[in-house]
Amino acid sequence: MTVLTRPILEIDLNNLLDNYHTLQKIAGEAVCAAVVKDDAYGLGDANVVPMLYKEAGCRHFFVAHAIEAERIVSLIPEATIFVLQGIGEDCLEIFKQHKQIVPVISCPQMLDFWKANRPDKRKPAIQIETGLNRLGFREAELAKMSDDERKDFCLVMSHLACGDEKDHFMNAHQADNFNNLKNTYFPKLPASLSASDGVFLGKEFQQDLVRLGAAMYGINTAPYRPNQMKNVVRIQAPVLQIEPLPKGDFVGYSATYRANTNRKIAIISIGYGDGLPRSLSNVGKVFFNVSGKLSEARIIGRVSMDNIICDVTDISNLEVGDMAFLADEFYTLDDMGRDAATISYEIMSRIGKNTRYVRKVLFRS
Amino acid sequence: MTVLTRPILEIDLNNLLDNYHTLQKIAGEAVCAAVVKDDAYGLGDANVVPMLYKEAGCRHFFVAHAIEAERIVSLIPEATIFVLQGIGEDCLEIFKQHKQIVPVISCPQMLDFWKANRPDKRKPAIQIETGLNRLGFREAELAKMSDDERKDFCLVMSHLACGDEKDHFMNAHQADNFNNLKNTYFPKLPASLSASDGVFLGKEFQQDLVRLGAAMYGINTAPYRPNQMKNVVRIQAPVLQIEPLPKGDFVGYSATYRANTNRKIAIISIGYGDGLPRSLSNVGKVFFNVSGKLSEARIIGRVSMDNIICDVTDISNLEVGDMAFLADEFYTLDDMGRDAATISYEIMSRIGKNTRYVRKVLFRS
Repeated sequence: MTVLTRPILEIDLNNLLDNYHTLQKIAGEAVCAAVVKDDAYGLGDANVVPMLYKEAGCRHFFVAHAIEAERIVSLIPEATIFVLQGIGEDCLEIFKQHKQIVPVISCPQMLDFWKANRPDKRKPAIQIETGLNRLGFREAELAKMSDDERKDFCLVMSHLACGDEKDHFMNAHQADNFNNLKNTYFPKLPASLSASDGVFLGKEFQQDLVRLGAAMYGINTAPYRPNQMKNVVRIQAPVLQIEPLPKGDFVGYSATYRANTNRKIAIISIGYGDGLPRSLSNVGKVFFNVSGKLSEARIIGRVSMDNIICDVTDISNLEVGDMAFLADEFYTLDDMGRDAATISYEIMSRIGKNTRYVRKVLFRS
Repeated sequence: MTVLTRPILEIDLNNLLDNYHTLQKIAGEAVCAAVVKDDAYGLGDANVVPMLYKEAGCRHFFVAHAIEAERIVSLIPEATIFVLQGIGEDCLEIFKQHKQIVPVISCPQMLDFWKANRPDKRKPAIQIETGLNRLGFREAELAKMSDDERKDFCLVMSHLACGDEKDHFMNAHQADNFNNLKNTYFPKLPASLSASDGVFLGKEFQQDLVRLGAAMYGINTAPYRPNQMKNVVRIQAPVLQIEPLPKGDFVGYSATYRANTNRKIAIISIGYGDGLPRSLSNVGKVFFNVSGKLSEARIIGRVSMDNIICDVTDISNLEVGDMAFLADEFYTLDDMGRDAATISYEIMSRIGKNTRYVRKVLFRS
């Protein structure tokens, strides 16, 4: 008899590295930077960054916040780290202390702040708006800048809104906007338009530098065709209890599930307190590998903080202590995202930040 | 001119302590235990536990996992810490090392494991099933136990499915079940039926010990009337950029929002990478305090990992660096949960685990 209580989170750095290399091939001549913001999408920048530095020779990293860049400086000796949220009073000190951290300036107010406070001659990157209507200089603002101001950057960049939809009109629209603005205002600057999704859209989108994020972590950023990436995240959780569920009985909070017939249920030790989306209530599923056969079991009732309840009526030989598979090659976070009415990015960002997992980081040395 | 980049998370321990005291009054003679699982609902057990120990004299704590109990042992000198997921091979060592950690046994297999591996004579708690159909002994299993086995527990407990709905038939049903099972099998044992929601349902639900969780953290667990609890979590995030949004333009990923008229937008530095639910896309809201007047602004387009975009057309005098209020007394996590089609519990559990916040823990010394 096995009794276990904790869920297991496996992070496969071998597959992550393979994904980086696959993307590198597709990206051709473009420099491949790694996007490791949000603690490497929740998977741990301490796991991901040194590996990419040593094994893939990656020397350009993107984060959202300066405090994330500061952690990365402590992990690897030499690289350029771009900060997408840019610079402000609350992180100026970090930029002063670390020459290799480069702010991405996205509006005139931030440029003024930079000019008033820059610690040295390092050149920032500039984000320009091409259709996403998020961070970035609008054309009217670019037009107002002096030639000298425009020359004082190291990279011009933008970001696609619909790069995961191959034929979306926004892609060509944004590429045109980008090329026009770049050629008009920053003709000599290295250029970056695309994150993972744009890498698959061809040369015009790859420009001089691509920012590899989601796809590197195994997410299918080209969902119009089968995923070319390998799976990076696997989740398992133990069965704590198996019981009959009599016909007519309710399950879970607010009694949202009622058994129409006699059923058998398994209570699994994982919940939204481990990052599992509560929107999987009554729609999510888990898998069991019993006697070499993979069987699906539906989540019934509400996902609670520490547990889910699954209908295992049709799975014989299941025992307390057996593991439920929640994410794996055969059911990825992309699949879970669809079932949970969100995207894998959000789930990945949540999962890895929870401390109750038995954490296994796989990497060949 | 102010330029800021990081969101701010404020955890108000004064209000948390007041909530504990309010609940204590309502609970009358019942012992008040604190539920601090999932890192105190994400707010930090290191913040919450020592304060409750010192200021409220709390001596009974509930966690989900033994590793959580181990952290709590390191925070306070002396208390009883109940572990809801119980005991298994993956946490046996923790129970061996710490006498004050008590497993909650919820099924026969776990009881067998306990009997084969118990480190000493300490008595575990027993969870019994009364209607939730989650963890807990079913009656047939209780009937099979010997008298000696039944006497070898320190507490009998169960959990309500619908305690936040005052008149739900499940409440009386579960209370009846609980009293019958308790009187039949554990007539002399201290009893606990209710978490925060049951505290408001009266004496029959309060029994000997209540487990204060959600309400203590400010969540309204009695939503059939105005919240008696004080707000504990406040979130702010800075405006990074303000721009016109021309009529016909799209906003955010997948271009899910299009402007019907000329609008003004603000890009705010917070996203699902900070725990903000992505399901707030196109439905959530933030508030601005401009010249002493509180104004609401709708989130438009998709919530992205690091940013949201808000329609601030009707808010004059807004400037880069101004703070957007995302959670506060006037818009609590309960309100956000409704807008995000989930519950505040899930959001609270996510928010506090993110490291990009400037974190402010308020407590009078």
